[in-house]
Order: sequence, then C-alpha cells, then structure tokens
Amino acid sequence: MADQIKFLLDEEHLPKSWYNLQADLPQPAAPVLHPGTGQPIGPADLEPLFALELIGQEVSQERHIDIPEPVREVYRRWRPSPLYRARALEQHLQTPARLYYKYEGVSPTGSHKPNTAVAQAFYNKAQGINRLTTETGAGQWGSSLAFAGSLFDMEIEVYMVKVSFNQKPYRKAMMETFGATCIASPSDTTESGRAILAHQPDSSGSLGIAISEAVERAAQQDDTKYALGSVLNHVLMHQTIIGIEAQKQMEMTGDYPDVVVGCTGGGSNFAGLVFPFIGNKLRGEQSSRIVAVEPAACPSLTKGSFAYDFGDTGQLTPLVKMHTLGSTFVPPAFHAGGLRYHGMAPLVSHLAALGEIEASAYQQLECFEAGVIFGRTEGIIPAPEATHAVKGAITEALRCKEEGKAEVILFNLCGHGHFDMQAYTDYFAGKLTNHSYDESELAMALAGLPSVAAQ
Amino acid sequence: MADQIKFLLDEEHLPKSWYNLQADLPQPAAPVLHPGTGQPIGPADLEPLFALELIGQEVSQERHIDIPEPVREVYRRWRPSPLYRARALEQHLQTPARLYYKYEGVSPTGSHKPNTAVAQAFYNKAQGINRLTTETGAGQWGSSLAFAGSLFDMEIEVYMVKVSFNQKPYRKAMMETFGATCIASPSDTTESGRAILAHQPDSSGSLGIAISEAVERAAQQDDTKYALGSVLNHVLMHQTIIGIEAQKQMEMTGDYPDVVVGCTGGGSNFAGLVFPFIGNKLRGEQSSRIVAVEPAACPSLTKGSFAYDFGDTGQLTPLVKMHTLGSTFVPPAFHAGGLRYHGMAPLVSHLAALGEIEASAYQQLECFEAGVIFGRTEGIIPAPEATHAVKGAITEALRCKEEGKAEVILFNLCGHGHFDMQAYTDYFAGKLTNHSYDESELAMALAGLPSVAAQ
Repeated sequence: MADQIKFLLDEEHLPKSWYNLQADLPQPAAPVLHPGTGQPIGPADLEPLFALELIGQEVSQERHIDIPEPVREVYRRWRPSPLYRARALEQHLQTPARLYYKYEGVSPTGSHKPNTAVAQAFYNKAQGINRLTTETGAGQWGSSLAFAGSLFDMEIEVYMVKVSFNQKPYRKAMMETFGATCIASPSDTTESGRAILAHQPDSSGSLGIAISEAVERAAQQDDTKYALGSVLNHVLMHQTIIGIEAQKQMEMTGDYPDVVVGCTGGGSNFAGLVFPFIGNKLRGEQSSRIVAVEPAACPSLTKGSFAYDFGDTGQLTPLVKMHTLGSTFVPPAFHAGGLRYHGMAPLVSHLAALGEIEASAYQQLECFEAGVIFGRTEGIIPAPEATHAVKGAITEALRCKEEGKAEVILFNLCGHGHFDMQAYTDYFAGKLTNHSYDESELAMALAGLPSVAAQ
Repeated sequence: MADQIKFLLDEEHLPKSWYNLQADLPQPAAPVLHPGTGQPIGPADLEPLFALELIGQEVSQERHIDIPEPVREVYRRWRPSPLYRARALEQHLQTPARLYYKYEGVSPTGSHKPNTAVAQAFYNKAQGINRLTTETGAGQWGSSLAFAGSLFDMEIEVYMVKVSFNQKPYRKAMMETFGATCIASPSDTTESGRAILAHQPDSSGSLGIAISEAVERAAQQDDTKYALGSVLNHVLMHQTIIGIEAQKQMEMTGDYPDVVVGCTGGGSNFAGLVFPFIGNKLRGEQSSRIVAVEPAACPSLTKGSFAYDFGDTGQLTPLVKMHTLGSTFVPPAFHAGGLRYHGMAPLVSHLAALGEIEASAYQQLECFEAGVIFGRTEGIIPAPEATHAVKGAITEALRCKEEGKAEVILFNLCGHGHFDMQAYTDYFAGKLTNHSYDESELAMALAGLPSVAAQ
C-alpha cells in the first residue's frame, strides 16, 4: 500500500465533550462590560439574546463540557472529519516539511460552521425557542444555521452582508432550500439598517452592521433569540471538536505538529483547531507554534488595538476586550467575506496578548494563488477564507525548505470554494486585485473606540 | 448510541477490482458496428480514440478487473464513500420502508464521475498520451476529467453543452482551477460544431453534438485521445466500485435491498450502483428489483427505440445498439444537464431488453420538489440529476407505505447540487417549468435511425 494520506477516525471516536480553553488560561480574559455602566455584565443581561445553557458555557471554567447526544447524532452525519497528509502539495513545493490538513468541507454546508450551528439550535430549541436571527458574511454561517434550523424545525432569519449577498447568490438559494429567510444587510427592516442606509445608501455592508440588525430583531421579539457564528467563547468552544479530532488523528500519523495554522476572521475555525493544542502547551504537555493568518485588508490582529469595543457597528452589543479595528470600520469588499470582521474573538485576542499565538496577514492575490496550487495538487478547491490558511501553511513549508527542516505543519482547511467560484473566475480573468483599507478611516474608527475605565 | 445512520468502510476495504457485468450476462450485448461496413469493429478501429487497456476492457469477459494501484491511491482521497440510512426522510414520509443511499458527492468534484476519470487518465498517461478531449453536459464529467488531468499532468480540453455552459458558469471555473480548457459547444473550433451553427446559430447544444466535437479534435491529433464520461462498457465498469462498496456496506446494515434505484442519463452512475446487484441476481444468489429513473423530457428508456445508432449527433462514432431517441434528437434545456443524452448505455439497454431492469420517467418540477424534501430532511442538496433518483426512491417508499410493506430501498445520490443552485433559485422563484420534447422532432429523429442489416 502506498504512503497513507487520509486519516479517518471511527465513529466511536467522535468526541463526547468539547474543550473549554478557559480552564487552562494562566490568567482569565477580561470581563464583558455593560456599555452603559462600564460594569461586568451578568447572565441576566444576555438572556434576551441567548439560551441559558449557552450563557453558562460562555463563562464556564470546566475543562470539558459534554456534547448533548442529539448534537452528536447530527455530527455523526459527517464527523469525525478527515485529516489529510498533503503529499502532493509537499512534492510540488519540494519541501522537507510534512504538511497535514484537517478538512471541514465535508459538512452539509461545506464548512466548519455547522459544528456550532447545530449546538446553538439544539440548546435554543430545548429551551422552547422556535426562531433565531443571525448575520452572515460569505454565507457559510447563515446556511449552516439554516441547515440546523431545518433539523430542529426552527425559523431562521439571516442578515447577509450585501456585498456577499450580491457576490454569492447561491448561498441564499442554499439557505432557502433549508427553509430559511435571507435578507441583504443593511436592510430597511431594522432601525440599525435604516440608520446606515440614510447615511450611506450604497453601503456594501459589513458583519458589524449585519450583527446589529440581527441582534435588534431578536431583542424586539420575546420568542426569538440570536445566534452568532463566531467570536463568543461558547462558539469557539463548540468548534474545538475539530482540534480534538485532529489530535487523535495526528497520533495515528505518529507526528506532532511543530506549527499549527488557521485563518482568522472572527476566530472560530482557528480556535477550533488550535485551542486543544494550546491547551497542551499551557498544561506543559506538548508545544507547537500557533500561527493565525488574516487578510491584509482587514487586519485586526496585526493592525488593530487590543481594547474594549462593541461587537457590532450599531453599538447594541456589550463591550468586549479584543483586537479591533473599531466597530465603525468597514473593510473593503474582498472575496473572503467570512474574514471581513472588525474584531477578533476575545479569547484569541487574549492569547495573542499573552504571546501564545503569532499573527500574519496576506493579500488577496497571493491567497488565491495558493488556493489554485492547492486545488491542482490536492484536488480540493478551498474557500477564499481557507486560502489564507493554505497560504500560511505554504509559507511555513517554504521556510522549512530554506532552513532544511523537516517540521510538521498542520492547518485547517475550513471549507470548500464551491459557492465562491466567481472569485476564481475573476482571478483567472485577471480581474481580482489586492485591497487596501482606508488608513484615515481606520485611524478614525480606532479613535472612536468607546472610553472605558478599564482601557 | 442512537440508531446508526452512517455506514463507513475502512480504507483497507477499498475494492481491489472492478466488476465486469459482461462475465455474467445470459447472452452477450450486440456487437459495435462500423458505420461504413456494417460489420463488427475491432480494436484497431478504436485505437485512434482510446488507450489500448480501455479498448481491452470494453470487450473483456473477465468478471473482475484489477484496479491499478495508482488509481486506488487517488480513490483513497475520498473513497470508500459513505452509505447512509435516510432515517429523517423515512420519518418525514412516514413510511415503513428502510431507505439507504450511497453518497458520491464526497468526491473532489462532487459526483461519481472521478471514478472513471481517474482510471481513464491513468491508462492514457501510462500509454504516453498527454492530452485528452471530452464533452460534458452539466459539467460534472468535464470537471472530473480536469481534476484527473491535474493529477497526472495532462492537458484536458472540454466541450461543454452550451445551455449548461451558460446555466452553470462555475463548473467552467472549476475546470480552469484544475488547469483545463473549457469551450461552449457547438463551437467554431470543429467541423461538426460549424455544421450545427451554420444550420442553427442559436443552438443550445446537446451531449451528442459535444461528443462529435471532442471526437473530431482527438481524431485529428496523433498525441491526443478522447475520453467519454458514460455509455461505454469500460466507463460503466469503473463505476461499479460504487455498488461493490455498497454491497459491503449493506452487509453492515444487516439489510439487503428489495429495490435499487438510480437516475439514468448515459447510464454510468446507475450502472455503477446496480450492476453488482444485477450480477448477484444473474448468478442466482440474491434478487432485487432494479429501477432506472429518467427525465420525462429525454426519455430514452421509456420512449426510445432499441436500435443501432450513432453515439453522437455528427455521426462520427461507431454504431451501438441501445435505447435511443435518435442521434439528431436535441432535448429541451432542463436543468439536469447530465441526463440530456439521446441514447442509453448499450449494457443498460441490453438489461432493459432482457427484462432485468424497470424504467420510469419524471418531470422536472416533481424532481426538484423531491430534492428540496431531501435537503430539508437529510441535509444534503442533491444535484438536479440526483433528484431523479430521490424522486424514484420516494415513490417506492410511498408505495411501501400504501402497501404496508417494510421493504429495503437503496438509491444512488450521485452528486451534490452546489453548482446547480441557480436551478433551486429558479424553483423557489416559481420560474422552473416542466419540459416537453417536440413529438414531431422525436418522430423524425427515430425515423432517421441508420439502416443496419442487424436492426
């Protein structure tokens, strides 16, 4: 038999619990603050938006939190997901490094997002909630919550960032196929949306704006809660199933990663893969370098401030301490819609501040170039978001080549690009460009960070 | 643990050989004839178009043909593919039947087509061929040969039926990502294409026309061969890996199918699943009803003649005996582009004539309705082609409900619909209609069947 390239876990090895990084942190992340009082918020402040179980998970200090059996039952449709050795890519790069990737594109919607969508839908349904609102960038999250809604018989209302709504109409079709409603944001269905449109009628939207709209809708209706696809602690925790599986699969390979790479928008696919490895490091067991890759056009980790900020543009959410470009910052309309968020998950930001992770930023064109190399060698066309992780992994592999080091590199291929082919079409037609954010707009957004005693 | 819904085979159970139905036929299929002489053709007649190994497989009487190790190595990237129990769909239908489906959408291009694309590319490359031409309908086949070409470093030239080229531009982007060239057919790059355009400048194309163009291009160039995505014996045989795996997986379930269902265009995904089950039947081992489902707008099995005909519209190919609507028949532009072929694989046609399979035909709207039901219950959005198999399986399941029978139904979900979302968008917008073929055009096409002594 030829060298093994696919490492599959049996269904009985599907993890029974998620990993909660908070249990292993040397110091806790900064508390979430009420924007009015500047005081830490309590569960009651979050109840209008989230199911009680999720609020509990948000602050839990338990290392392992059980995955409910009905959630595991849904996971079993596509999980454990495969881990691949990227031998063809290694050969193409002529690198001595050994490259592995965890592939989350095997889920029904083609990304890691259902890992938390199913959990959030389950906990809400268990509490008697029948309607959820949410935002979505490229549509990966919106279609995943729509999928979860169809399983648990819930109404799902998705505010989709307008630039992606127009670039990726088929994500909307997917949401509708699962029975959800999809609205381009900013819209005239909310105060927040109307405020943006009044000021900027041709706004292409942003995750920050779409969050405002979805939060507003949920807050207005007693029978409706809100679901977020990234950023929050409980969302990141649901994604750790990726890294827990990857650890078992890496054991099968006989290798342990020297470097773990993921792309970062809000931080959830990155956290999902790396948190269990960071846990090993924090507990003094095994150590890896952890590399976050972000788009140069929306560089919260590499260019943002580590400060208290709103999670949304309409400033409806509590204040969280995170790497942020400012909640009024609207990134340019590049194709990796899932990475167009002004902030970074508080836990990921906290780890960056602790020096536990490194961050790098790449331009759109070099990421697509990496995506095409990956497609032609490994046979899977990555989502634009995932091309950032591929680019980061290739960079590490080429460094290994230069240094003559046979390091082990693991990265997260968080989704396929089947709904993003217009981006590849544009790339081949030479129509794709790099994007720069507006420096003065960034300076203004950063200057406008809320003033909080704790800053 | 909840009731099992996913049945996975270990990699070591990846089949080592394909199954060749010809070994078990009670009487052989009619020979392929030279259109000029009316005499059976020999290997030399096919050499300009096909690699020698493939020509050998076309007429082999061996029951099992070894899968070359480099082909198995590629298969291992996504095979063995999963078998699912459709419990959520069963519950929705309230049927006592037990429904299972084999899911081929896990391949890099999202359908069963790479099973033969990889094999054909391998055998050609082994013979020193570096360029292949082919046709494609919905693009599933073209993108699969493009994928295989990228693995074996071959140039791939794809003639894509114009209606699909326009309906599904992202399939072209996928082919280009894999490094292939994709041309809308009819085109002005071939005699056959120019002849059609001269007569009908706005022709939306057909598989028959695209085959003519691809065959012409291959025949003109010494270093180029042709690859066909369906119809031929060797193509169907490469697909039997689906059914061989499914048989092992059905053993895991403890059930044996009473009914096996597949959709039919050229016949390859259908044959891939059902031939191993028909083999069991022909050898007197175990018996199932076998049901082929075709589009009512291109009904070769239910409305065609069983006669010698050309495989292409330009009448460049040898004559094969098959169920056919006539090689000049151009089906209406419905969305299941992979089912828009005037003929049916000779082996499938032969089995129909022997009474070993049943055929049924469904309209576009009822198939999409079935596809949406499937998406909302099972979480996978089927390709328009695959909705026909879903519709066929649902029909059987509802029959079981009416008759109070707990039969076991197995069907092939041959691909996902990620590249076909415009069809779903149109369906939800009420823009999709049923299509009728032109009765007089069909009569004319059938009247024009070539006269062969053997008819």
